[in-house]
Amino acid sequence: MSRVYNFSAGPATLPSTVLERARDELLDFQGLGMSIAEISHRDAAYMAVHQAAIDGMRRLLGLSDDYAVLFLQGGATGQFAMIPMNLLPTESVADYVNSGSWAEKAIAEARAVGTVHVAADTSQDHPGRMPNPEEIETSADAAYLHITSNETIGGVQWKTFPRSSAPLVVDMSSDILSRPFDASAFDLIYAGAQKNLSIAGVTMVAIRNDLLDRAPATVPPVLRYATHAAANSMSNTPPCFAIYLTSLVVEWIETLGLERLYRQNAEKAAKVYAAIDATGFYTGAADVACRSDMNITFNLPNEALEKDFVAKAAANDMHGLKGHRSVGGIRASVYNAFPVEGVDALVAFMKEFERVNG
Amino acid sequence: MSRVYNFSAGPATLPSTVLERARDELLDFQGLGMSIAEISHRDAAYMAVHQAAIDGMRRLLGLSDDYAVLFLQGGATGQFAMIPMNLLPTESVADYVNSGSWAEKAIAEARAVGTVHVAADTSQDHPGRMPNPEEIETSADAAYLHITSNETIGGVQWKTFPRSSAPLVVDMSSDILSRPFDASAFDLIYAGAQKNLSIAGVTMVAIRNDLLDRAPATVPPVLRYATHAAANSMSNTPPCFAIYLTSLVVEWIETLGLERLYRQNAEKAAKVYAAIDATGFYTGAADVACRSDMNITFNLPNEALEKDFVAKAAANDMHGLKGHRSVGGIRASVYNAFPVEGVDALVAFMKEFERVNG
Repeated sequence: MSRVYNFSAGPATLPSTVLERARDELLDFQGLGMSIAEISHRDAAYMAVHQAAIDGMRRLLGLSDDYAVLFLQGGATGQFAMIPMNLLPTESVADYVNSGSWAEKAIAEARAVGTVHVAADTSQDHPGRMPNPEEIETSADAAYLHITSNETIGGVQWKTFPRSSAPLVVDMSSDILSRPFDASAFDLIYAGAQKNLSIAGVTMVAIRNDLLDRAPATVPPVLRYATHAAANSMSNTPPCFAIYLTSLVVEWIETLGLERLYRQNAEKAAKVYAAIDATGFYTGAADVACRSDMNITFNLPNEALEKDFVAKAAANDMHGLKGHRSVGGIRASVYNAFPVEGVDALVAFMKEFERVNG
Repeated sequence: MSRVYNFSAGPATLPSTVLERARDELLDFQGLGMSIAEISHRDAAYMAVHQAAIDGMRRLLGLSDDYAVLFLQGGATGQFAMIPMNLLPTESVADYVNSGSWAEKAIAEARAVGTVHVAADTSQDHPGRMPNPEEIETSADAAYLHITSNETIGGVQWKTFPRSSAPLVVDMSSDILSRPFDASAFDLIYAGAQKNLSIAGVTMVAIRNDLLDRAPATVPPVLRYATHAAANSMSNTPPCFAIYLTSLVVEWIETLGLERLYRQNAEKAAKVYAAIDATGFYTGAADVACRSDMNITFNLPNEALEKDFVAKAAANDMHGLKGHRSVGGIRASVYNAFPVEGVDALVAFMKEFERVNG
């Protein structure tokens, strides 16, 4: 069996040691004679895994007891709805920064629930970018300000987060735990797991306790943060296997160290951006100041060459380099678990492809 | 490695051949050099799996093109909220049969959304039972009638489903695909997967197309059935690994045959009920006419003996026989994938335990 380099934007590469461990214990977890996927979620063996994932997440994010750490279902898209359902009263307004495709989806869900004010809009900018803090025009008494820490399609990432007097809510689906940051500056942090945390099917939510119980009475219990916080995310059956894999990924990150992982991520991205900038053959799609360390977007001189690039890369065991269908081009997603060797292979391939076609 | 007999009520035993296959291809799916859990959900390899799960479910349920088959997140509990949010207008009323703990949870979620009429209530009956059809007092012009096909805690199951002039909605989480039935009598069938279909984290919804688009404008897109039907459950990233396992379980059921599986389930349950009824030592907790083939509930002469029974069974590699904490007693959950040999082992153990303690 040979593993390829998987540049998919998500679901994405998992650490091979995590997959190997999951494989080895898939039929018999800790000698119990059952799979972790078959054990009751009320069983002590599962509950220890569940708590380990929560505790590890809390440590890695540096969260105080002022926050609850939840594992929910429904993806980040589910949170796009739950956030306004819980935090946006009908008479109020929520501020959203529209930084691209994911922010737009968050805005669309929120608009069904209440009043949205777009506080800044860089979604149509070329090259793609995040707004400068002074561009953000917040509402008086906004229920919250929502930002997207990294846009996977545009390949843009906040390098310094804006401050906010309203509660600050961030979608970190595509760069959670890829770099240290001050979590205490945020009131709600959420992330679909399928890029940096686990497989698709679980969503991490870290929420300040004082925001838990703001939902109007018309919101059903299962869609209220307070319900899940009170039950430690066991109010109904959690997505146990996805949480188990989260616990293994969290352990992998803690062993490696978040600071070291960040340096590795920065180094990986820098190598590809250096290859892009080396000559005029490749063109970065994002503003240099906002280039994402997770999703590296670039173009070739024309679409025919881009198509050829993707096909030849795949033939060389580099999978998933095609840009999102809405923007085209090339996208190399290099999340936490993507290996340095895969980046080196891509850079070598880029040089060779340019030598032949440039 | 030795596998134990796992009587857990859910998450529950999976077919060992399914787990073995998942293990064998966990790091390399179909020679792609990636895990099925790492592949983009837009990749052809995943999309084929996704469609196979949908098509297999459609075949096994015998659904016409009048129904959409969806795979959603949030569990049956998520559906407890989505159903009234989509189908219960504010000026209307929804009828619910309260047959036990799960029906009660469904009612609690619906009450946040709209007006609920309890059309029959057997939740407090001892022995537990489902109502007779003539006991169900429906409302004029109800938005729908909701029933729970099998109550895992009480161990009661509808043997003949009631008819309804209002759209008929059924929670089949704990007995879906355990027996043939006329799906066309229902307008919405849903099931959390962690008992008979897959691991926790995916929920199957089969819904008549004419019910898809009834949600008021205030329901966010991600919580509307129409959104997921229009995108074939790919509107946002689906829980790919849980759907992959569903595809394997569906294939396992189709190979075995639903009719044969049903006979096996009936035979498994009959063996345990025969052991319960053989003498006065064990007492069935459910009315004989409503005894569940999936969750067999019974009592011993006293709680001390029940505790001893559970402990000694566990020591004999029979796991998860403790009744739900809300009712106590013993519960043997014997879903589709629970092996006949495990039932034989339980029956032998029951006889021996009675011989020593009776």
